[in-house]
Amino acid sequence: MNDDRLSRQIHFLVEIDKLKQILRKTSLMDGSRRENSAEHSWHLALMALLLAEYAGEPDLDLLRVVKMVLVHDIVEIDAGDSFCYDPAATADQEERETRAAERLFSLLPDDQAVELRGLWEEFEAKSTPESRFATALDRLEPLLQNYQNEGGTWRAHGVSHEQVRARMSPIKSAAPSLWPYVERVIEEAVERGFLQANVPTGT
Amino acid sequence: MNDDRLSRQIHFLVEIDKLKQILRKTSLMDGSRRENSAEHSWHLALMALLLAEYAGEPDLDLLRVVKMVLVHDIVEIDAGDSFCYDPAATADQEERETRAAERLFSLLPDDQAVELRGLWEEFEAKSTPESRFATALDRLEPLLQNYQNEGGTWRAHGVSHEQVRARMSPIKSAAPSLWPYVERVIEEAVERGFLQANVPTGT
Repeated sequence: MNDDRLSRQIHFLVEIDKLKQILRKTSLMDGSRRENSAEHSWHLALMALLLAEYAGEPDLDLLRVVKMVLVHDIVEIDAGDSFCYDPAATADQEERETRAAERLFSLLPDDQAVELRGLWEEFEAKSTPESRFATALDRLEPLLQNYQNEGGTWRAHGVSHEQVRARMSPIKSAAPSLWPYVERVIEEAVERGFLQANVPTGT
Repeated sequence: MNDDRLSRQIHFLVEIDKLKQILRKTSLMDGSRRENSAEHSWHLALMALLLAEYAGEPDLDLLRVVKMVLVHDIVEIDAGDSFCYDPAATADQEERETRAAERLFSLLPDDQAVELRGLWEEFEAKSTPESRFATALDRLEPLLQNYQNEGGTWRAHGVSHEQVRARMSPIKSAAPSLWPYVERVIEEAVERGFLQANVPTGT
């Protein structure tokens, strides 16, 4: 056993415990508290296992999707969670996340640092079938949560159905057979008052 | 798209959100709060990715290990978490967990119910290299947590180093090259007063 290699791996594994303290904007399905990014990542991994059959592109590498969703939010330990419907919060997000990736992944032995950083960069770039499907799952989970908890962040921030439909559009391309379901959820959310039918135009 | 199939998958995915509310006995690395079973499962999946090289048995199916750790605690949604050092809590654990598996996995379409229940049963039986390695990770994570948070559940429950060594023994067989590290952590935990050196004999 190479002691230095194991030390670096353990150091990283201890460090990423902090992801359990990063709160997302969305709440759990029952609305009782906000979700953290570690348990969110677990949920996406289960979704990958169960919903892979809906991926639009053939020959998806399932292990790669699962690795990617497990790793995709680790940068938030340093960079925080950025609320997707807030342009101000996302303005310097890329720079913050790149610095975070530099620090966090370099805790690992070089080969694993390269692998995990590569997975994160692939997720961000949405350049492969696996990263596009992972993104679709990352959009679907908060849709389910906001619907289940009767509007959640949608109601709190006055989000419109057009904004949600735009936010969900990666599902349309990466998992087209799920899209009719997504549309139904959005329609029902409008009917039940969880989502604004129209954004006020100010006129 | 088969609407009934997707409905069952979504129903299961919504139901397992409850795993985020199941608290384990162990606390986070910084001791600030107890860990829940969903974020614990995420952590084990990362450990599987990074520590697979220490598995004692060759040709480990990594995707199978990852699936198993993602699924291994889902039964706790109905059965609760059983504290490993409390014989009373573990007495009817098997029966409770079997009933939970029956209800929870049967929410899924039959093929996926069979797959996930099979993964859980394999984990419980420790009958394969993958399940033995998954068990080793499930033991290693709380060792790191209790050491990092200066004794945690060990101190709270007066656990001895012999009890911890016995609890960690699956690591010795499934990942023998990690065992010297585990022994060092236990020794340091005794030196620093996180673990009892000897259980009082009552004499």
